[in-house]
Amino acid sequence: MALVVQKYGGTSVANLERINNVADRIIRTCLEGNQVVVVLSAMAGETDRLIGLANDATGGKPNPREYDVLISTGEQVTVSLMAMMLMDKGFPAKSFLGSQIRIVTDKNHSTARIRKIDAGLIQQELDKKRIIIVAGFQGVDRKGNITTLGIGGSDTSAVAIAAAIGADYCETFTDVDGVYTTDPNVYDKARKLKKISYDEMLELAGAGAKVLHQRSVELAKLYNVPLYVRSAFNDDEGTLVTREDQDMEKEVVSGVTYDRNQAKVSVIRVPDKPGIAAKLFTPLSDCNIIVDMIIQNASVDGYTDLTFTIPKKDVAQVEKILDAVAKEVNADRVHIDPNISKVSLVGLGMRSHSGVASKMFAALAGEGINIQMISTSEIKISCVIEAKYTELAVRVLHDAFALEMAS
Amino acid sequence: MALVVQKYGGTSVANLERINNVADRIIRTCLEGNQVVVVLSAMAGETDRLIGLANDATGGKPNPREYDVLISTGEQVTVSLMAMMLMDKGFPAKSFLGSQIRIVTDKNHSTARIRKIDAGLIQQELDKKRIIIVAGFQGVDRKGNITTLGIGGSDTSAVAIAAAIGADYCETFTDVDGVYTTDPNVYDKARKLKKISYDEMLELAGAGAKVLHQRSVELAKLYNVPLYVRSAFNDDEGTLVTREDQDMEKEVVSGVTYDRNQAKVSVIRVPDKPGIAAKLFTPLSDCNIIVDMIIQNASVDGYTDLTFTIPKKDVAQVEKILDAVAKEVNADRVHIDPNISKVSLVGLGMRSHSGVASKMFAALAGEGINIQMISTSEIKISCVIEAKYTELAVRVLHDAFALEMAS
Repeated sequence: MALVVQKYGGTSVANLERINNVADRIIRTCLEGNQVVVVLSAMAGETDRLIGLANDATGGKPNPREYDVLISTGEQVTVSLMAMMLMDKGFPAKSFLGSQIRIVTDKNHSTARIRKIDAGLIQQELDKKRIIIVAGFQGVDRKGNITTLGIGGSDTSAVAIAAAIGADYCETFTDVDGVYTTDPNVYDKARKLKKISYDEMLELAGAGAKVLHQRSVELAKLYNVPLYVRSAFNDDEGTLVTREDQDMEKEVVSGVTYDRNQAKVSVIRVPDKPGIAAKLFTPLSDCNIIVDMIIQNASVDGYTDLTFTIPKKDVAQVEKILDAVAKEVNADRVHIDPNISKVSLVGLGMRSHSGVASKMFAALAGEGINIQMISTSEIKISCVIEAKYTELAVRVLHDAFALEMAS
Repeated sequence: MALVVQKYGGTSVANLERINNVADRIIRTCLEGNQVVVVLSAMAGETDRLIGLANDATGGKPNPREYDVLISTGEQVTVSLMAMMLMDKGFPAKSFLGSQIRIVTDKNHSTARIRKIDAGLIQQELDKKRIIIVAGFQGVDRKGNITTLGIGGSDTSAVAIAAAIGADYCETFTDVDGVYTTDPNVYDKARKLKKISYDEMLELAGAGAKVLHQRSVELAKLYNVPLYVRSAFNDDEGTLVTREDQDMEKEVVSGVTYDRNQAKVSVIRVPDKPGIAAKLFTPLSDCNIIVDMIIQNASVDGYTDLTFTIPKKDVAQVEKILDAVAKEVNADRVHIDPNISKVSLVGLGMRSHSGVASKMFAALAGEGINIQMISTSEIKISCVIEAKYTELAVRVLHDAFALEMAS
């Protein structure tokens, strides 16, 4: 018998038929002798509908506290429907909102972080042989105001609950059936991984893979919660995200991923003086713009070029901010290129195996793909290339590192 | 400066445009120097949509606890939208759910009764110069489970809050602009009343008038909360429901009302023995069927006929129950007639003025309308007549008592 946390995303509970399928799957897990805590998202589309209402009601600037009161209704609907459906099938179940199960967060509405979960309350309900259905994505601050956790919130709720109650593992059911060596839509030779380390999953998520959000993986790593990524629509085994073990060391590269949502910004001929970089980046960070790869070339004649990437959606805002700053710091000009993508290799084996970078560059060069920027971490190499080469680059790298074959 | 509770029903907040209009009205009330607590229903249609989901999810038998979790989201949506809209217009506001403002109820899901409201919490927020927006219709039991109050729930919430905080009055905004001497759709001579007593309003509501639910009027009477019935769509003065005063004594009859949703049940030739009535009515009450007028004729040869009215929607169920019971008690047969309606006169003046009943019977007889049943209370007379005469009876009685003219 295991204590299991199962999380089902919005597409898995998009309508009553799918909620019914999920209910049957939960029942199966129970009948196999497990204790189950379920975490649900809102029905697919519902959160967007509510956000639309909030924006229409306020000209796009809803009060953060009230915004959270509004959008948290989405999960409230799915958990009550699921609990009543399970009971209708003869299985004792009980729904809990973030406020009821005491998922206490800080008071940052829409981006709240979990501080504490009342594991005792969940344990009490489990002891009564009930299936616990918890509303994901939401919590409550110390004063009782409803908060929401932001992007990846339900995954985060599930992992946090698993950690709090000491679950044996956490399963997250989604519309893909695991973590692949690359996006199967881009390359049909993509292979599903049986196992991947937290660190690799973090780098893959950060580099554009959409299966899991970084936050939930960080939390799983911190509390060492084994995390299964599985499909809500079939019984395939999925991928286990877990801590590094000896098996894993064999894989030099685990996956290739890409991110088409970045734009490249170059500030040309910046006077190379202390404090200039701060002057450029502080106004961006003040506007919550996430700057990713940053590269500064060696200085020539007291001038340098600064290049970095930003989310494509922020291009207009960044252009406006930097045009002003560039003048202030006497830079020559700002050039923004949205026509790029970032292709990344991730693998634990990079630590010990040299030559991954050179093999990557050679493979891209072999197809005439020019590398515009490079950045590396301990277990990742990313290259910015022209956008039109994205799929080609993914396939070439997948082949170069023989990712279609399990090692 | 007054402390005011305003309640807006589902049609008043049916969409963002109407919520916007209500927001402007609330602001106007504040600018006139009042402190305002607002109680809202769900958007018109939303509660029905959620009930539909619950029934579809469970084959019509949703678990009561989960049902309340589900349908209480309707009010959560409107209060958050209203609060963010008011803030967007520059007026500090804050929404509260039943659980947050501590509207503590008993644990009877879907028909919960309010036990306690934390007036201190509301007062604290008012002291901060905020407009308080409370989700109507919902509360929380002592264990923190969400409850709902059933039919007329939001009106009940509003009156209970007004009583708890000692509000100067409670305004309930609806799609009609007050209480009329009769239904204006049936008789265009209907006149809006400026004032009516709690007792008359209770009798009118019980006799079929749909403006206010009896529960909220009972509560208003109990705590002596002056209650204004007003239109959400215009600035007309509406009707004040309040305690009896000398002005009111002048009106012999305040209104004529009708109820087409009743059916007449006759149990023919029942042996006139002790305990028989209990045997007939106990199974009906066990099924929560509300029996209204009950008439038992004088016994002849040890047999009597028992006649009473029930809601039309329960006819099939009642027929089934009574056919069995009739056999058991050796009654001759059961006859059910759904083709009736109940027409009632209500007025405080009936207490002191004799002759109201005879004038009523004469007026009906003058149009050849046969009276099938009669029942009276201190301030009401009701007659059951054939359904097709309903409108005619209403008009005749309105004229007979000269209700179109204010006394």
